[in-house]
Amino acid sequence: MPKTTMQTAALAPDQLGLMDRYWRASNYLSVGQIYLHDNPLLTRPLVLADIKRILLGHWGTTPGQNFIYVHLNRIIKQYDLSMIYISGPGHGGPAVVANTYLEGSYSEIYPDISQDTVGLQKLFKQFSFPGGIPSHASPECPGSIHEGGELGYSLSHAFGAVFDNPELIAACVVGDGEAETGPLATAWHSNKFLNPNTDGVVLPILHLNGYKIANPTVLARISHQELEQLFRGYGWHPIFVEGSDPDYMHKAMATALDFAVREIKAIKLNAQENRVFERPRWPMIILKSPKGWTGPKIVDGVQIEGTFHAHQVPISNPESKPEHLPLIEEWLRSYRPQELFDSLGRLLPELAELAPKGERRMGANPHANGGLLLKSLQMPDFRDYACAVPKHGVRGVGDTHVLGPFVRDVIKLNQENFRVFGPDETISNGLEAVFETTNRQWEATTKINDEYLAPNGRVMEMLSEHQCQGWLEGYLLTGRHGLFNCYEAFIHIVDSMFNQHAKWLKVTAGLSWRPKIASLNYLLASHVWRQDHNGFTHQDPGFIDHVVNKKAEIVRVYLPPDANCLLSVMDHCLRSKHYVNVVIAGKHPAPQWLDMDAAVKHCAAGIGIWDWASNDTELSNHAETDIVMACCGDVPTLETLAAVSILRKHLPTLNIRVVNVVDLMKLQPQTEHPHGLNDAEFDLLFTENKPVIFAFHAYPSLIHKLTYRRTNHRNIHVRGYKEEGTITTAFDMTVLNDMDRFHLVIDVIDRLPQTGVKGVELKRMLSEKLIEHRQYINQYGVDMPEIRDWKWSDKDE
Amino acid sequence: MPKTTMQTAALAPDQLGLMDRYWRASNYLSVGQIYLHDNPLLTRPLVLADIKRILLGHWGTTPGQNFIYVHLNRIIKQYDLSMIYISGPGHGGPAVVANTYLEGSYSEIYPDISQDTVGLQKLFKQFSFPGGIPSHASPECPGSIHEGGELGYSLSHAFGAVFDNPELIAACVVGDGEAETGPLATAWHSNKFLNPNTDGVVLPILHLNGYKIANPTVLARISHQELEQLFRGYGWHPIFVEGSDPDYMHKAMATALDFAVREIKAIKLNAQENRVFERPRWPMIILKSPKGWTGPKIVDGVQIEGTFHAHQVPISNPESKPEHLPLIEEWLRSYRPQELFDSLGRLLPELAELAPKGERRMGANPHANGGLLLKSLQMPDFRDYACAVPKHGVRGVGDTHVLGPFVRDVIKLNQENFRVFGPDETISNGLEAVFETTNRQWEATTKINDEYLAPNGRVMEMLSEHQCQGWLEGYLLTGRHGLFNCYEAFIHIVDSMFNQHAKWLKVTAGLSWRPKIASLNYLLASHVWRQDHNGFTHQDPGFIDHVVNKKAEIVRVYLPPDANCLLSVMDHCLRSKHYVNVVIAGKHPAPQWLDMDAAVKHCAAGIGIWDWASNDTELSNHAETDIVMACCGDVPTLETLAAVSILRKHLPTLNIRVVNVVDLMKLQPQTEHPHGLNDAEFDLLFTENKPVIFAFHAYPSLIHKLTYRRTNHRNIHVRGYKEEGTITTAFDMTVLNDMDRFHLVIDVIDRLPQTGVKGVELKRMLSEKLIEHRQYINQYGVDMPEIRDWKWSDKDE
Repeated sequence: MPKTTMQTAALAPDQLGLMDRYWRASNYLSVGQIYLHDNPLLTRPLVLADIKRILLGHWGTTPGQNFIYVHLNRIIKQYDLSMIYISGPGHGGPAVVANTYLEGSYSEIYPDISQDTVGLQKLFKQFSFPGGIPSHASPECPGSIHEGGELGYSLSHAFGAVFDNPELIAACVVGDGEAETGPLATAWHSNKFLNPNTDGVVLPILHLNGYKIANPTVLARISHQELEQLFRGYGWHPIFVEGSDPDYMHKAMATALDFAVREIKAIKLNAQENRVFERPRWPMIILKSPKGWTGPKIVDGVQIEGTFHAHQVPISNPESKPEHLPLIEEWLRSYRPQELFDSLGRLLPELAELAPKGERRMGANPHANGGLLLKSLQMPDFRDYACAVPKHGVRGVGDTHVLGPFVRDVIKLNQENFRVFGPDETISNGLEAVFETTNRQWEATTKINDEYLAPNGRVMEMLSEHQCQGWLEGYLLTGRHGLFNCYEAFIHIVDSMFNQHAKWLKVTAGLSWRPKIASLNYLLASHVWRQDHNGFTHQDPGFIDHVVNKKAEIVRVYLPPDANCLLSVMDHCLRSKHYVNVVIAGKHPAPQWLDMDAAVKHCAAGIGIWDWASNDTELSNHAETDIVMACCGDVPTLETLAAVSILRKHLPTLNIRVVNVVDLMKLQPQTEHPHGLNDAEFDLLFTENKPVIFAFHAYPSLIHKLTYRRTNHRNIHVRGYKEEGTITTAFDMTVLNDMDRFHLVIDVIDRLPQTGVKGVELKRMLSEKLIEHRQYINQYGVDMPEIRDWKWSDKDE
Repeated sequence: MPKTTMQTAALAPDQLGLMDRYWRASNYLSVGQIYLHDNPLLTRPLVLADIKRILLGHWGTTPGQNFIYVHLNRIIKQYDLSMIYISGPGHGGPAVVANTYLEGSYSEIYPDISQDTVGLQKLFKQFSFPGGIPSHASPECPGSIHEGGELGYSLSHAFGAVFDNPELIAACVVGDGEAETGPLATAWHSNKFLNPNTDGVVLPILHLNGYKIANPTVLARISHQELEQLFRGYGWHPIFVEGSDPDYMHKAMATALDFAVREIKAIKLNAQENRVFERPRWPMIILKSPKGWTGPKIVDGVQIEGTFHAHQVPISNPESKPEHLPLIEEWLRSYRPQELFDSLGRLLPELAELAPKGERRMGANPHANGGLLLKSLQMPDFRDYACAVPKHGVRGVGDTHVLGPFVRDVIKLNQENFRVFGPDETISNGLEAVFETTNRQWEATTKINDEYLAPNGRVMEMLSEHQCQGWLEGYLLTGRHGLFNCYEAFIHIVDSMFNQHAKWLKVTAGLSWRPKIASLNYLLASHVWRQDHNGFTHQDPGFIDHVVNKKAEIVRVYLPPDANCLLSVMDHCLRSKHYVNVVIAGKHPAPQWLDMDAAVKHCAAGIGIWDWASNDTELSNHAETDIVMACCGDVPTLETLAAVSILRKHLPTLNIRVVNVVDLMKLQPQTEHPHGLNDAEFDLLFTENKPVIFAFHAYPSLIHKLTYRRTNHRNIHVRGYKEEGTITTAFDMTVLNDMDRFHLVIDVIDRLPQTGVKGVELKRMLSEKLIEHRQYINQYGVDMPEIRDWKWSDKDE
């Protein structure tokens, strides 16, 4: 006996009948997409040649999503709602394609897929067909901001979409399979971060169809009581719609949605009228319907509808099983296409009338095509936030602390379309200045000693990198801007989400109807070299290895060596579109190298010789360079310059060139990455045949991966993180990984036999220094004074 | 007014007093670890020189965990329990170190840290000190199987630990910070997968201390009712212990734990006696206590205890704030060390008596040092599962389908210490044969059409890669064996968990008291080239890029080209210890190249020339090789051999050498990886100067990264996945990424000018073939017959 928590209302019988026909139309189109190569309206008996040769696609989730879509259409029209549709379950493609086609938004974007028989045939053929469209709610599908290829992020995306969109409702269908994933399981708590006045609404529809690929789902196999407790515990008001009889279910769903809309409106009104704040219990729907609903009941003696066997293609190819052909025809005809489409293949007018109009159609809502709504950020002049660098090497306060006021003012100037996301680390990462102008948005209880919590704020913090990433993606995809600050090691938690977003950007870059969106900007502070009190588990600089595997058109990686460079880089990133920008910066006090003018110039070039630190230039116009000391990243830059100091003092006749890299992709050939230097430019910097000692922020092999085609590659010797670490000082970290100043000098000597006896002597001395360092730090827990007090001096001083 | 769900029982006052003193002792040791460089027992007034120069560590979570530990000690003794302790909150290091020291297990392993004043001083100094120990429950800490450096996996680890350990209880402290992570949020559902007869028990203790680094926690800021509903909804029976008064709290905690033990025993008994199955509601504790409990109340005018300010070091260094010195002393003395330790620094006997004895001590429970319990698997002879390869290139049934019966029999022979984990993909990945002998373990409701679900089974499937990984890690760390099968693209979901496990293996490899554990084995079927019906979102072969950044001693990567090689490789992996093995294999019907004898030989070498596919050998003993065709992975091997066919037919005078790579790390220099070939061996295979066309399973740059130091590196031209894909055939995928047979032949011609006019002509023909292919597949959705029907012929046929 199906249950709902309320009585079904009297929906006008004719409307119910029309909606049922509309649902049948979308189901028919869905089955057609999976099976039909031709004969789209079954105007003649089905023959084998009408069937696709390879049957791919997923039926299981589809009829339920079609059911939801038609019901959402009704409330959109009835209450004039601005709503987008997020298809969480994997493989909901047939449903969203069918529905956007029926409402007309599909053909507006793809005129070739016209609303007639010819268009229908193309619509069917392209699905799950080489060169066609995938079986998910892919970027090619109008109205989609969520692919569903990788499960777990629908609800985070939905919340991201409605932040700062107070009029928007994101209807989010959550599959009971994806509900088992970690990211989805914590995303239900997003309701503690949603402001009923300034944000929109997420209406989750948990679709309990009971099965995954080959297993039942957990949430479908716990008691009704547990299920209800779980979602009440998550802070929602669950409304149950359960059953399989279409007639009953239409009424129940309509009643539930009417109730949900009333609740939503009441919450919104209450929030506007009452200044007393209490976190609302937003409504959600729990829709329990059979997997593969309305599909074949039994095929080859196996029950299909209502079991996991309905997951993919329920009736296999009649090419090898001729008896399947009539089953397919029977199934298709069960939707009575002649009652749905006219002889030209057009949806009958009384049905077409059910869909919302214009931008109210979920396939045409501009929020689901964020580039349409994107406004450039109002940017303060980053030069105004410069730190003074009267001489090279002055001690700074920590680079991200300098960035903080700039981000603060970006927030101040863009109160409605810029947010900062981070897993409880915004202060820890050095951006404390943002709290001078804003707060963390927080809708749960507050207490007297809390800091910077408010119902409305521009900083979103929850201890879930998945949530930060998912919210931000949803925010960007709906046309806004943002910044994700994170510990470097733990950004790997969202490796896979990054993958999917980068893939989305790659595909949408090729869709002219989707204008570009703002870049996804990562600020990775608290990086591998400065985990002084966290140690080995917090040391992993490999995210950039992961990132550079994605399309060169999409990814950018920056390692500013100091605060002014960080400002310049971040200004660039926040203005950019359709990239993923990874910026790695330090938060601890560290030497500053470039004043703002020099920083701007250096960052614009992305890579360059630091003349002031080199002594090859003055000697003979570069011709006599003995050694190139390259560096990328703040700590490697410090150690490189310290090594240069030692060399200048002890081997003063050496001609040293210092090259600093801000824009990592400069190293790749221009044929591989749009930022890449051409070979002549690269050779000018790195020479064609001199040894290069390269101190790198991350794993050394990445530099080889980027430069292996370069003329001088075999002379490039890279030092970087080699997975050695513990709780210790930054300098000791470089020692453990052979990237400290002493090792770098030894590397130089090893490559320059001409340093002769002096070199041998220096090497011996530095080896002793390393022993001395180990003894000192083991005893005192801090670096030797000569390390702590070391300062750069320009050669002319 | 604090609440508990039951009356506090009368705990004998003297025992309560003793327990409170024991708690004070562990708190004292915790504060000592954070602050003291000397004067460990405060036998003289504290002076600045007694304080560490750099104060690192985390106080916030520590006193609560100390409280829990002393109470668990009591029930262990009282009920003679076998229990391990999992410290979920980050930075619980001071607590577990203090408690294992007090119970004596610490000094047994580290005799240098003796149970006297000298040992105490060393214990204090080493904490968060360069070369010392981290602030987490790190591998160096006895009793730990869970680091806590990266949050979210404690509960999965706990469940993994108790599978097949029916006598074991894993007490798992879950921080309210980590409880916000996705993986933890779904891990509560693990109770649907635990068998009360054949598995042990997880006793979660949700530690609601209310704060993260700088924020309150979500679960601490929802109503009591919501909190209780949430955990009842998750299927647990929550028992609340709330308050701050030690006296009250000791009683409440003791009562709650007594109740929990009674419930656990009743559930166990009921499961044994009654054959009627109903999923039990296991007890859990919700402990609400102040963050930084018993620590300083107010410092510098800021409230510390009970706020997020207690997270790290509550009283900053007196070096710069002399007024802090007396505060620190006052805090330390508040625990009255003279009532806890004798004048020699030994815990007083009446307190030492409270700890369990021998292996009942949580720091000495062998389950937390899995290598001690590890039994080698009983292995069937993998040769018995060989598929017949009467000639090279016969069509197989899909490599993982051949592997399936072998895995089935590994299960059959190892019913108590081997499990298979996967996110609902074990059948999809081709291992259906395992269900001939076992089931999926599933404790929730079942229905008539379910397949292979049972309360007891060797396959663990939940749609959460995090859970699969976390369970498996817990299972391995407690001395058992396992296999994780997963779609290749989505293994990135656990990138970060892999990182932490690899780091754990690296550190424990250096701890002689921790014997090696079984390897973590990944089988990545459903790989990048065969996503015919899933498309672009399911295509990412980058996990191996991620893996090879970790220590070479730990990681192994295998790409068997066919089923017999897969059997040989998997046999090797399952027998191995202390590695992470990544095996990538296909599941679709594909050509088979090697019979079992050849496969064994090839896999033992890891790389080799396939003489039967080459035609340089017979001509002139390798000297005249014109071109090396290298391949790694099943699809690249197929395309390479197809390209060789074309070359042999059209350019018969070319001397071609085919090299196949199974063990990817063979490519790295032996100085970088223990499997690496030395340069002479490498040159013998790849020549010193001939062009190499390398078809690779994953991103091409990985091959360059591994081989950049090799003599012939600049002649190695790699084809692989370059992030192009959609729903299409495997062959078309290779075309989209320029790795198909036609492109490979064109690559050869481009590098061999001596192919002259014939080469030019062939290139033209193949370019036309590519156009023809595109037209054909766009029309029919399948490959051209000449692709579908292509078969390898040995040259002597």
